[in-house]
Amino acid sequence: MNIVPLKYEDDKLLILDQTKLPNETVWLNLETLEDVWEAIYSLRVRGAPAIGVAAAYGVYVCVRDSDAKDFDSFYKEFKEKSDYLNSSRPTAVNLSWALARMEKCVLANKDKPIDEIKSALLKKAHLIRQEDEYSCRMLGEHGLSLLKPGMGILTHCNAGALATAKYGTALSPLYLGNERGYNFKVFANETRPLLQGARLTAWELSQAGIDVTLICDNMASIVMQNGWIDAVLVGCDRMTSKGHGANKIGTSGLAILAKEYGIPFYMFVPTSTIDFDAKEMSDIPIEERKGEEIYSLWYEKEMAPKGIKTYNPAFDVTDAKYITAIITEKGIIYPPFEENLKELKDRLK
Amino acid sequence: MNIVPLKYEDDKLLILDQTKLPNETVWLNLETLEDVWEAIYSLRVRGAPAIGVAAAYGVYVCVRDSDAKDFDSFYKEFKEKSDYLNSSRPTAVNLSWALARMEKCVLANKDKPIDEIKSALLKKAHLIRQEDEYSCRMLGEHGLSLLKPGMGILTHCNAGALATAKYGTALSPLYLGNERGYNFKVFANETRPLLQGARLTAWELSQAGIDVTLICDNMASIVMQNGWIDAVLVGCDRMTSKGHGANKIGTSGLAILAKEYGIPFYMFVPTSTIDFDAKEMSDIPIEERKGEEIYSLWYEKEMAPKGIKTYNPAFDVTDAKYITAIITEKGIIYPPFEENLKELKDRLK
Repeated sequence: MNIVPLKYEDDKLLILDQTKLPNETVWLNLETLEDVWEAIYSLRVRGAPAIGVAAAYGVYVCVRDSDAKDFDSFYKEFKEKSDYLNSSRPTAVNLSWALARMEKCVLANKDKPIDEIKSALLKKAHLIRQEDEYSCRMLGEHGLSLLKPGMGILTHCNAGALATAKYGTALSPLYLGNERGYNFKVFANETRPLLQGARLTAWELSQAGIDVTLICDNMASIVMQNGWIDAVLVGCDRMTSKGHGANKIGTSGLAILAKEYGIPFYMFVPTSTIDFDAKEMSDIPIEERKGEEIYSLWYEKEMAPKGIKTYNPAFDVTDAKYITAIITEKGIIYPPFEENLKELKDRLK
Repeated sequence: MNIVPLKYEDDKLLILDQTKLPNETVWLNLETLEDVWEAIYSLRVRGAPAIGVAAAYGVYVCVRDSDAKDFDSFYKEFKEKSDYLNSSRPTAVNLSWALARMEKCVLANKDKPIDEIKSALLKKAHLIRQEDEYSCRMLGEHGLSLLKPGMGILTHCNAGALATAKYGTALSPLYLGNERGYNFKVFANETRPLLQGARLTAWELSQAGIDVTLICDNMASIVMQNGWIDAVLVGCDRMTSKGHGANKIGTSGLAILAKEYGIPFYMFVPTSTIDFDAKEMSDIPIEERKGEEIYSLWYEKEMAPKGIKTYNPAFDVTDAKYITAIITEKGIIYPPFEENLKELKDRLK
C-alpha cells in the first residue's frame, strides 16, 4: 500500500491530479497561491484530510519566498493567503482546521526571525501529514475490528488513500484486512456527478489487489436486497457534536437503505473532522456546485436539454440516528453519540 | 402535448431515436426484422408500453411483405419473427403481451386470405396504440386526483410520453395538471447508467413548459430532506399479483427513502403491465447489461480502471410494502394489494 495523494520532495509540493485518474497519472508541482487554490477548488486534491494536508503545505509554499522583513508584514501576508485558500471549499472542516494550526504556528514563533518561522511552518506541515497517516492507520485498526473475513462491503465516493495522507479513512480497514487475508468483496458506488468512486476508489482498491465491483449509485438498494452487503463504510467531511455527519452527496440515502435492510452503517471520522461548534444538521453549510458537472462535464456531448435547471449539492448530512457507529482514530463511538462525543472531546483536550 | 415515440405514416414505421435525444431529433424508418429487434434492444424505443406498441407494429412490418401463400407457412414465418423480437428485452411484460395479441389476431383470421390477415394485423397494431393512449390518459386522470397544485414531485427514469403511445404513465398526471394550471415543481433523477431522466424526462417535461430540475440519482435523499418533495411518481415494467413492481434500477431505493421521509410513493401500472402469473419479487427476471454502459458509454474517455468488474442490472423490484398506491387506468389500488389486484383481475376478465 503506497498510494499517496501528495508529497513534499526536493522543496516541491507535488499533487497527484485526481481529475486525471484513472487513465493518467499526472503529478502537478504547485508553486503559487493560485495553483494551490485551484487544485483544491477543482478537486485535483480532494477528501477532507488530504485537503487539510495540502492546505498546510500549500500555505507554506505560498509564503516561503516572502520577502517580508518584520513579523507584522509576514503575518499579514500569511493571513491574506491563508484566508484566500480557506475560501476554496466550504464544507470540509479540515481545510480551516489545518490553516488555523499553521496560523498558530506563525504566532507561536512571532519573536523568531522570519526564516525560522518559515522552517517551523514546513515542520508543522510535515507533522500534520504524519499525524493524518497515523490517524488513518488507527481508523483502519478500529474499523477492522468490526469486520469479518469474506464480508461484502459497500462504499461511496472515495474515503481512501487518495483522500488522506495515506491508507484512507473508510478504506483503511480494507487495506489492513487485505494484508491479513480477509478477502473482502467490495462494491464501489460510482458517485455522481464527479465519479470519485469509479475513478478513484475502484482504481486504488484494484491497484492494491482488492476484489472490487463498480456499480451506479442507484444500484445500492439492489445489492443490499441481494444479500451481498454486510457493512457500509463511508467517510465524513464534517461531523457535529450530536453525531450528524456530512459526507459526499448520496451518503444520507445509503444510510437509510442500510437501516431498512438491517445492515450496519459505519462512518469513519478522524477527530479533526468533528466540528464541536456545530450541533444540528443545519449547522453544516452545504456546498452547491455548477450544473455542468451533471450534464456535460465528462460527456462527449451535453446530456440534458440546453438551459435545464439543476440542483447540485456536493454533500448531504446523514442524521445520527442512521449511523451504527462512528469510527475515530481514538476508538469506536456508539450511541448515544452526543454524550459519547462529548466524552471524546474531553479526552482530546 | 404532442410528443410521441413512434408513428405509423405512409406505410412506414417511424421511431424517434431516443438514444439521440435531447440533442438531436432523429426519426428512423424500421423496415426489417433486424431493424426492429435492434431498435428495442438498443433502447432507441424504450418504456414498457412503447415497446409493446413498437413490437406490434414491428412484427406487422416484418410480415407485411411475406410471400407466404398458405396460412401454415405464413403463421410459421410470423411465429419465428415474433419469437425473435420477443428476445430483444426480457423484463417488460408488454413486449410478449403485445406479440401474443398479434399472434391471436393471426390465429383468429386463419381462414381468411393472407392479405386480409395482414390488414387485420395492422388494424390490431393501431388498436394497441390507441388503447395505450387512452390508458395513459386515464392513468393521468386517476394520478392527478392524488395531487394538489404547487406540489413538488420526484420522478425516476422516463415514464413519460416517450415511454408510451402518448402522455406517459407516471408523467401523465403532470401533463394533465399542467394544462389545468397546477404548477408542479418536478425533480427528475438523471437515472444512471443510461440517463433516461436527463435525456428524456427533462427534455419532454421542459418541451411542455413544466418546471423541471435535473438531479443525480444520489440527490433524491437530500431533496426529500429539504422538504421539496410531496410525492414520488414512477412507472412500472412488470408487477406481480402481490403488488411487487419491477421498474428502472434505483426505484426500490427511492421507495425506501420515500417511506422513511413520510412521502407517498405512487407506482403507475397500466393493467397490461401486471403479470398475474408472477407472485413473488423473485418471479421477475432482472435484465443485466454490459459494464460499458457504466464506465464508457457516454464518456469522452473510460471512467474506471481498465478491466474493472461491474454489476449492471437494468431494473430492480420494489417490495409492495413500500408502495402507497398503484395507479392503473381502471382506478387506484390501495393495500392490501394482493386482494385488491385479484379483484381487478376478475374485473378485467
